[in-house]
Amino acid sequence: MKNNVLIVGAGGVAQVVAHKCAQNNDVLGDIHIASRTVEKCQAIVDSVREKGSLKQDGVLEAHALDALDVAATRALIERTGARIVINVGSAFVNMSVMSACLETGVAYLDTAIHEDPAKVCETPPWYANYEWKRRKECEDKGVTAVLGVGFDPGVVNAYAALANNDYFDRIDSIDIIDVNAGSHNRWFSTNFDPEINFREFTGQVWSWQDSKWTSNQMFEVRKVWDLPVVGESQTFMTGHDEIHSLSQNLKVPDVRFWMGFGERYITVFTVLKNLGLLSEQPVTTAEGLEVVPLKVVKAVLPDPASLAPHYTGNTCIGDLVKGEKDGKPREVFIYNICDHKACYEEVGSQAISYTAGVPPVAAAMLIADGTWDVHKMVNVEELPPQPFLGLLNRIGLPTRLREGDKDVALDF
Amino acid sequence: MKNNVLIVGAGGVAQVVAHKCAQNNDVLGDIHIASRTVEKCQAIVDSVREKGSLKQDGVLEAHALDALDVAATRALIERTGARIVINVGSAFVNMSVMSACLETGVAYLDTAIHEDPAKVCETPPWYANYEWKRRKECEDKGVTAVLGVGFDPGVVNAYAALANNDYFDRIDSIDIIDVNAGSHNRWFSTNFDPEINFREFTGQVWSWQDSKWTSNQMFEVRKVWDLPVVGESQTFMTGHDEIHSLSQNLKVPDVRFWMGFGERYITVFTVLKNLGLLSEQPVTTAEGLEVVPLKVVKAVLPDPASLAPHYTGNTCIGDLVKGEKDGKPREVFIYNICDHKACYEEVGSQAISYTAGVPPVAAAMLIADGTWDVHKMVNVEELPPQPFLGLLNRIGLPTRLREGDKDVALDF
Repeated sequence: MKNNVLIVGAGGVAQVVAHKCAQNNDVLGDIHIASRTVEKCQAIVDSVREKGSLKQDGVLEAHALDALDVAATRALIERTGARIVINVGSAFVNMSVMSACLETGVAYLDTAIHEDPAKVCETPPWYANYEWKRRKECEDKGVTAVLGVGFDPGVVNAYAALANNDYFDRIDSIDIIDVNAGSHNRWFSTNFDPEINFREFTGQVWSWQDSKWTSNQMFEVRKVWDLPVVGESQTFMTGHDEIHSLSQNLKVPDVRFWMGFGERYITVFTVLKNLGLLSEQPVTTAEGLEVVPLKVVKAVLPDPASLAPHYTGNTCIGDLVKGEKDGKPREVFIYNICDHKACYEEVGSQAISYTAGVPPVAAAMLIADGTWDVHKMVNVEELPPQPFLGLLNRIGLPTRLREGDKDVALDF
Repeated sequence: MKNNVLIVGAGGVAQVVAHKCAQNNDVLGDIHIASRTVEKCQAIVDSVREKGSLKQDGVLEAHALDALDVAATRALIERTGARIVINVGSAFVNMSVMSACLETGVAYLDTAIHEDPAKVCETPPWYANYEWKRRKECEDKGVTAVLGVGFDPGVVNAYAALANNDYFDRIDSIDIIDVNAGSHNRWFSTNFDPEINFREFTGQVWSWQDSKWTSNQMFEVRKVWDLPVVGESQTFMTGHDEIHSLSQNLKVPDVRFWMGFGERYITVFTVLKNLGLLSEQPVTTAEGLEVVPLKVVKAVLPDPASLAPHYTGNTCIGDLVKGEKDGKPREVFIYNICDHKACYEEVGSQAISYTAGVPPVAAAMLIADGTWDVHKMVNVEELPPQPFLGLLNRIGLPTRLREGDKDVALDF
């Protein structure tokens, strides 16, 4: 049994990860939370203790850490005896946290690709720009690194693998659909850090179509889906991490990602972008003050963390897979529905953080018990999906499948 | 002949005022331009010289002046020998400039009500809050003060007086309509200082209906008009200076103001307002920088002065007057059409500055020759409209009248 966990990051997702690790500390052992602002880690520790989330008595500690500092991260791993690092810090720290894991030989998990703060959109496949350059090093050192194991990327990659293994002889297309049909009762808010949120939709949109990379503008391609529970939902084709690994690991000609956006979001985004208020380049006011417009937008918007207590409704995230089985065309939608209010009651976060934070804990548990401890770098679709989805069924993110008129829970 | 003019202010309207004064310096004498930033005054002087706008050789000088400093303003009036002050500076300086005029006994003209920077919307009638409190002092000292003599307020008040004197036995309603159907070829821009522009539409909307003050929210009441030249135009009921004097000076039960707004303006305004980006209260960024959101919005928007060279299309501003004449119902629309491009070619400004800047020069000329030198404080509807409108016909803002199928130029 490989255990003791170090969580890097102290945002909304880290809060969920900490609660879920605590609920499973019989498997995961000691739990340590580290980020630059130790007070944020301590607030999470307090929240876990208040909710009584620890399954059994055990270590739960907050630490100050600059995760860009490899030596400091390495020292913390050694001091805490962590065997698994769950990196849910900013997307800018992936490479340095991974370095510390490679140096100490512990397992590495993350939920989003590495980003260079200076580059808004990189050439596909994104994983090849940073993560995959270290595949050989992981293999040589026998270090398990599971990339992108949140919900999307993550669970949706497992859905794709499941479809590929069990439901199809040939897959023609995978459309990953992510719709938040929840309501936060504010005129406008982003669901996570506005700086990261807007950044995600500022550049060009990469998709994998006809077995090649295709580029569009954001909000150029629109599609309305009729989805379980949340109903008719407007989405736009968006670039997203999982397209970049699924396109390389599965032989599927079309892999696309669709993100749900209401009219309000699109209007606000369009105005802010066209006025230049999403710019990260400083402007100078008439009074001579130099200021980055996006920082001011962030300052006037609600703190996403403040939304959770009042969030209602559901998210629906899944893979619409089309292809052929036994000589006949087939179409299935493998998905999860997550209820904002239920999440808040369980761990004090809304469903967007919950869906992102539960899967890496499931992955950590599978590494702890050896099932996923593969001693190399992988994306989720390269691992057996059933143990993962089965565990998620039990710890809060059940999988369902809709096919024609049939809509059933999947057991594993 | 009372002449020599001091122009206070150096913005877009001041530029027009200076050119028009220069074109009529045989009547107006020496021309002085003063504002806090002397370079802006000098740029106007240079523009007047470049265009060769001076009708005859004469004084044309730039001065630095803080118009809130009454003693300094008084000293400048005395030093320049100005007999007429045209105040087209910020709306915050009216009272101090008027004080300097009262102390020196020279005529005072402005184009907008006084505003206290700390108060966004005051109780009606607005003129009673500041200007009218000095009526007696003007009368006692024999000082001519013509309030609100731009286009609206100003020319539209003269249209109302003309309708009242010559076209109706009884007026039931005056709807003042201001539509800019021009295009500046930018995704979005305000036509004057964004801080002042947005401020105008942030508060409640006062109108005079059924002979009493009525309050609405901005963008609550919409009306589409079919107007000469510019065609179908969407407008919204807006608070505006002239309602506050016309309602008191004419016995008309309904006086309303309608401002044209395109969908783009409304969308941008709504988003910025709802996000809190029009706030004049400072916010603090995550990095600890204290900044006023509205100042940042101003910094990212185009400089309104930069729009003029590319502006095309027309403005249409006028009074739709309904009532009775000789026992029969009557409806007339008295209006002006102004062409952005023609304005730019003549004085280097677009039609919005032009329509605001030409009328005070006409008023100054009527004071210079005695016609309007009434030795008391008045609003424009209290003065004989014909000499004013006749002069405007000749210097760039011709009046037209539409009644049923008839649409004619008015001569005076």
